[in-house]
Amino acid sequence: MASYQPNPRTQVTRLPKRAVYDQAQVHAILDEGFLCHVGFTVEQQPYVIPTGYVRAGERLYIHGSAASRMLRKLDQGIQVCVTVTLIDGLVLARSSFHHSINYRSVVVLGIARLVLDRDEKIDALRRFTNHIVPGRWEEARQPTDQELKATSVLVLPLEEVSAKVRTGPPIDDEEDHAIPIWAGVVPVRMVAGEPTPDERISPAAPDFDVRRLTRFF
Amino acid sequence: MASYQPNPRTQVTRLPKRAVYDQAQVHAILDEGFLCHVGFTVEQQPYVIPTGYVRAGERLYIHGSAASRMLRKLDQGIQVCVTVTLIDGLVLARSSFHHSINYRSVVVLGIARLVLDRDEKIDALRRFTNHIVPGRWEEARQPTDQELKATSVLVLPLEEVSAKVRTGPPIDDEEDHAIPIWAGVVPVRMVAGEPTPDERISPAAPDFDVRRLTRFF
Repeated sequence: MASYQPNPRTQVTRLPKRAVYDQAQVHAILDEGFLCHVGFTVEQQPYVIPTGYVRAGERLYIHGSAASRMLRKLDQGIQVCVTVTLIDGLVLARSSFHHSINYRSVVVLGIARLVLDRDEKIDALRRFTNHIVPGRWEEARQPTDQELKATSVLVLPLEEVSAKVRTGPPIDDEEDHAIPIWAGVVPVRMVAGEPTPDERISPAAPDFDVRRLTRFF
Repeated sequence: MASYQPNPRTQVTRLPKRAVYDQAQVHAILDEGFLCHVGFTVEQQPYVIPTGYVRAGERLYIHGSAASRMLRKLDQGIQVCVTVTLIDGLVLARSSFHHSINYRSVVVLGIARLVLDRDEKIDALRRFTNHIVPGRWEEARQPTDQELKATSVLVLPLEEVSAKVRTGPPIDDEEDHAIPIWAGVVPVRMVAGEPTPDERISPAAPDFDVRRLTRFF
């Protein structure tokens, strides 16, 4: 079973029993999410910006749209932290102290660089689109040269990677089990609702089958 | 209508029409979310860690559990960026370029400090708990002195604040409206499922009414 190698920067220091370095588990978390939070530092001030991403093998492509502040200093690549967090449940314990959240998160450290190669950029954009809506790239109008120029894509290698996972019931102190309050897990998840067609949708357009959005069902 | 004052660090530079500085809107976003991503820098490396938070007036309390790496250098306070992102929908346009996400996000910059005052810390913990499960603090066993010591809470003033909001249908190029593909918005949201009671739940415990988790309904 392949694993990422922890180093002092990616070693999980708090609650290390929740640490995961297994490659397959990291990939599964990254593939289930579609929004990451990118951290970078400008003049000693950290910034954290939400944006889209997609994994391709051992590379993470990050949509550059969010980060004009970051892109200004991107010529040499920029030191980033990309974090993806999935929330799975609320953990209600008998004591306030042991309340928790069931979650799966991945933290990737490294140098993100602009994707300059045109074919790689188009391939990354195709992956972004199809990552959220499978098959959408093939049915939508594809980007013009001008649109390609107006879009930035960053790439970050999956090298310094750690994940953290909490799962399962509340862990209460032994003597608290007798307290007569409800304890357990309330699962939470993201779901898709009824699609709202655009006012100017073409009369020839087929309906949208929301079940294509497999991560929401 | 009270607003936060943008400065060069909080001014939204890309798609400024999405910028929001209105205090009431910022508060509403912060109150709907419960998980933030905290960014901080250690030896030039940015880190982004998910953790719980709650707003109290113009203060943001951040659960310190996530950030042992951060807490080591917290004596003097630490420069952070706290970002809260709510996802509202997937925006499917006729062109791949105009695909987007409907979202609401808040970015808070500033110096986070450890809460040292015992009463303020207990009050913040009460708020954390009740922010996620209204009324839970009052029914759960409250923290012992030892548990209080084992918990860190940070406080960050809401001073350098900006929000960004995208809402509404896809904005397509005029000539693309004739393309016969579905276009519109697929709403997404977090919902709570059926609670799973802990195996060792007290027979005297009442059922848990999941409707108390108002943000998930």
